[in-house]
Amino acid sequence: MTPIRPAILCGGSGERLWPLSRKDKPKPFHALLSDRTLFEDTLLRCAGQGDGVAFKAPLVIAGEAIETPVRDGLASAGITAAAMAFEPVGRNTAPAAAIAALLAQQQDGPDALVLLVPSDHHITPVSKFRETIAAAAPLAAGGKIVVFGIPPTRPETGYGYIRQGEPLGEGFTVAAFEEKPDAATAQSYLKSGDRLWNAGLFLFRADVLLSELARFEPEILSAVKESLGADGRVDAAIFATSPSVPLDIAVMERTAHAAVVPTRFNWSDVGTWPSLAEALDGDASGNVLAGDVVAIDCNNNYLRGESVTLTALGVDDLVVVATGDSVFVAPKSRAHDVKKIIAELKRKTRDDRL
Amino acid sequence: MTPIRPAILCGGSGERLWPLSRKDKPKPFHALLSDRTLFEDTLLRCAGQGDGVAFKAPLVIAGEAIETPVRDGLASAGITAAAMAFEPVGRNTAPAAAIAALLAQQQDGPDALVLLVPSDHHITPVSKFRETIAAAAPLAAGGKIVVFGIPPTRPETGYGYIRQGEPLGEGFTVAAFEEKPDAATAQSYLKSGDRLWNAGLFLFRADVLLSELARFEPEILSAVKESLGADGRVDAAIFATSPSVPLDIAVMERTAHAAVVPTRFNWSDVGTWPSLAEALDGDASGNVLAGDVVAIDCNNNYLRGESVTLTALGVDDLVVVATGDSVFVAPKSRAHDVKKIIAELKRKTRDDRL
Repeated sequence: MTPIRPAILCGGSGERLWPLSRKDKPKPFHALLSDRTLFEDTLLRCAGQGDGVAFKAPLVIAGEAIETPVRDGLASAGITAAAMAFEPVGRNTAPAAAIAALLAQQQDGPDALVLLVPSDHHITPVSKFRETIAAAAPLAAGGKIVVFGIPPTRPETGYGYIRQGEPLGEGFTVAAFEEKPDAATAQSYLKSGDRLWNAGLFLFRADVLLSELARFEPEILSAVKESLGADGRVDAAIFATSPSVPLDIAVMERTAHAAVVPTRFNWSDVGTWPSLAEALDGDASGNVLAGDVVAIDCNNNYLRGESVTLTALGVDDLVVVATGDSVFVAPKSRAHDVKKIIAELKRKTRDDRL
Repeated sequence: MTPIRPAILCGGSGERLWPLSRKDKPKPFHALLSDRTLFEDTLLRCAGQGDGVAFKAPLVIAGEAIETPVRDGLASAGITAAAMAFEPVGRNTAPAAAIAALLAQQQDGPDALVLLVPSDHHITPVSKFRETIAAAAPLAAGGKIVVFGIPPTRPETGYGYIRQGEPLGEGFTVAAFEEKPDAATAQSYLKSGDRLWNAGLFLFRADVLLSELARFEPEILSAVKESLGADGRVDAAIFATSPSVPLDIAVMERTAHAAVVPTRFNWSDVGTWPSLAEALDGDASGNVLAGDVVAIDCNNNYLRGESVTLTALGVDDLVVVATGDSVFVAPKSRAHDVKKIIAELKRKTRDDRL
């Protein structure tokens, strides 16, 4: 049982979960699907020994603005991080992966095995997650950069896809990374049987990843190396010089060492209010109620009252999310367009609400 | 031009304007139709000289719980009350009218002319209001208890009606006071041409009213007289012994001195959120927006954000009212049922939200 060092990434704004998700307390730091936050659930999912995997204490890589919720979440989950790094600006996942690999080498030596984990996904059951990671460990230990692929359950146009190639250990070679498809293409992907969703979950040896980054994106690697202090502090001016690139593009699409392992767990990125509502069981009227809510003669709504009492009468198929300073109301069918509200708030320079 | 002493009544909870209207700051103390509150508009409407009427400084009769908004509203309107009385418990309008008559006599002598005015109605234009009062003054000065009647504009089932009798000065004798009608009856009232809405606006000589109260409701009069201190403070235990009766039932339906004067102004009791929306001009999409609101692809809504940012996307024909601690969402066609929400909050003993 090879020990694995989880590296929890707290990036991403979760804008489509506004007004709950905010820049100083984004999506991972809210209890959306259980009594724990997505961040806490992620920490606990990647901790301890069992189901064929032994996790070491995590690395945490997060934006500077959310240091407080990160520390609070660790305390709440009872997890002590092995190291943390706080990015002064967002530079996407390739620089974050570099930080993870460097911190892991400090802890575990050159060939540290790193699991790069987004902190805002909903995954059940935990045992299947851990078994999937365990199954991929031999590939990663052998020098493959493993990306995990989610078997599609719908013709989703919002994710990138991975086309699997030849069998390889518990997984496959990667035949291609494919961009977010249009609706017809997504339908054909769903039927093909050889496509998987790319959910941004990776397992690799630190030395392998750093060597590929040195080859394909030397500017990223040098910026990260120079900016990263011994205490996890990241020099803002130097880090800002790093190109902002996702790990998929920086490395995965170019490397000869990519492998994909299909997952065996239920997965949701909890991207929108309706997707959150779908992931939960509604009451007899199909309503999903969260927080302090009074609903009368209402059907099939997602109603959330956070720090306020939300009351609704005679409404159907709505999303209503109320926080202490902002309220969002939309039909479920339009709720993904919350970005239009955010754009308007930005135009009005209402940063106090973002 | 007989001087008139206005007596502003601040009773009534305005529950149907929840969550804005609250027990410690009910409907009269919110700016609903202009930059001023209904209370301030009422004070200013009943002040100064002009349009055939000379108003003296007002008396204010209010519940103890709202002393602060009363004092704030007077200051904001720049009006100094001649006297104020704060009722420790609500006992409907007959005891309040008795307080008004007694306070007016202290100020102006036995035959003080008193205008009893609800503080939560919307009336335009002010000149027509004052002209209506001026027209009724000779009747009241001559010993009639004048109730003002609003010419109906729809088959309203929510108000009591007055059937006018024979011409009398600028008004009519009262043929009958009629209870809230059913829909068919309301339709026949509208067609009859001799029915008026009873809006709770009265003009009378203090001595006449007190004499009729002494005759018909001596318990009310004695409880009010004994409880009313020289400083306007009202003894709670004694005042509580007063029967709780509207002036209409206590006096108007029984007295031989009733007269009704039709009004010449536009009137709304701003009873519900949709009625408030109707009283205001919507924007090009038919939306009435109040406070801090962002609305995108929305039509014909009433959207109010008070101390919070209310955002709506793609919704039609809704009422959404958001305050710092509560939010109410309903179709306009159901908004009058907000009382069901209030009943549920009471059942849950959520007095903090009422």
